Amino acid sequence: MSETKYIHEITLKVRDYECDMQGIVNNANYQHYMEHARHEFLLSAGVGFTDLRAKGIECVVRAIAIEYRTSLCSKDEAVCRLYLRREGPKFVFYQDIYRKSDNRLCTRGRVDTVATVGGRATRGDELAEFFGEYITE
Amino acid sequence: MSETKYIHEITLKVRDYECDMQGIVNNANYQHYMEHARHEFLLSAGVGFTDLRAKGIECVVRAIAIEYRTSLCSKDEAVCRLYLRREGPKFVFYQDIYRKSDNRLCTRGRVDTVATVGGRATRGDELAEFFGEYITE
Amino acid sequence: MSETKYIHEITLKVRDYECDMQGIVNNANYQHYMEHARHEFLLSAGVGFTDLRAKGIECVVRAIAIEYRTSLCSKDEAVCRLYLRREGPKFVFYQDIYRKSDNRLCTRGRVDTVATVGGRATRGDELAEFFGEYITE
Amino acid sequence: MSETKYIHEITLKVRDYECDMQGIVNNANYQHYMEHARHEFLLSAGVGFTDLRAKGIECVVRAIAIEYRTSLCSKDEAVCRLYLRREGPKFVFYQDIYRKSDNRLCTRGRVDTVATVGGRATRGDELAEFFGEYITE
Repeated sequence: MSETKYIHEITLKVRDYECDMQGIVNNANYQHYMEHARHEFLLSAGVGFTDLRAKGIECVVRAIAIEYRTSLCSKDEAVCRLYLRREGPKFVFYQDIYRKSDNRLCTRGRVDTVATVGGRATRGDELAEFFGEYITE
Repeated sequence: MSETKYIHEITLKVRDYECDMQGIVNNANYQHYMEHARHEFLLSAGVGFTDLRAKGIECVVRAIAIEYRTSLCSKDEAVCRLYLRREGPKFVFYQDIYRKSDNRLCTRGRVDTVATVGGRATRGDELAEFFGEYITE
Repeated sequence: MSETKYIHEITLKVRDYECDMQGIVNNANYQHYMEHARHEFLLSAGVGFTDLRAKGIECVVRAIAIEYRTSLCSKDEAVCRLYLRREGPKFVFYQDIYRKSDNRLCTRGRVDTVATVGGRATRGDELAEFFGEYITE
Repeated sequence: MSETKYIHEITLKVRDYECDMQGIVNNANYQHYMEHARHEFLLSAGVGFTDLRAKGIECVVRAIAIEYRTSLCSKDEAVCRLYLRREGPKFVFYQDIYRKSDNRLCTRGRVDTVATVGGRATRGDELAEFFGEYITE
């Protein structure tokens, strides 16, 4: 996969409380990094997660898959990159995290999301309106 | 201070992800334990935190003070005990955490809370209705 | 999949701080529940995560996949069930979380783990020694 | 108290998973922000938390007190400022958090720490060596 697909990135400094007894970032915290990266992407696309909620649109995660390659440690910086594909009603975020110091891949992830209105999944057209230009074919 | 003052307790097993690089429960997690203990106390008193919110009453923490005495580790169980005093508009939770294996004091805490309605602090009468019998003089 | 495959379960009460703005347990926290369930399973199998570390064996997560079906809320209890398969050097934990009140499936998960000694993945024989009888064919 | 006392600051963007059902940053997370701010200060002073640990020196929190004034929400940025006083064997961090948009005080905190070597509290001279010039009289 070419890195040129990425359309958004943020850099996060590892916080020591995110590291566990093994001295490395706890696995679940990568999911937190990924959520924050998605929400920052939404903001950069002109619409916040809380703004969508105010419109009655909830972005709901249906599935997540993460491969763990290299662990992040205290003092490391995580570069969270993503691109987005639409697959029918689903918006699939491909989210990879790299260690800033050497650009080494730490985690490779995929997050399947849908939009719901009134608790029911939609065909995705509400979000497509916001994401249109960001969707990778 | 006599332990007989306590009016409520819950026991929580330490989860390994709550431990940090030092191999002990991260300091902020005791605050999480304390919040959970307060909310469980509310439920035992017949009213949940979310129920209060549904009535438009928010319980807001104004101040917290915690002394750290003994660290909890992997496999430990935390016994979270509390009692409650009213000080004017404030409801003050005295919350101490003990290690179950030897009843050793781990943290001693005090949490000052107020009730707000419509974002404004009240004189506390809404909560006193629920807490009446639980308040230690 | 039959529920009879499960070999271990724990029940966790949702803590309000685990819920996010949507009023439901934040997605990453299910991963925390799953980690805690695995570590409790290890203890029940007679060996703790920290004991393994003391022997120089680290259990490392290589991949995780979670499907989100039903959200847990404040006051809910999560029943975390698992079974285990060996696939070559990998120990694969199948971990599902149910809502206790109605036994509804909340998340379906798969966690691929390997044992490492001195930072290198092993063929898994160290862990098989502990897990032998628990492995589902 | 004059703001001119501060000797270090970092800015952190609120992450949505840090917000709870009330739509505001959960109280315990301010403690996380404060820990991260202290550790970043240590790094800026030329010594990391993990470096101290490697030398056998543990920085241990003995007490924490936080007043909550204004809540942080989604999209807010937190400016974490601190100064440091030595009180005998204790190093006391005065740590305040401001909302970046209007410089409004969100939390005012005090964290009492000591250095331990081999599990025993020291008179603080090991840390004073690193902190000397940063200590406010």
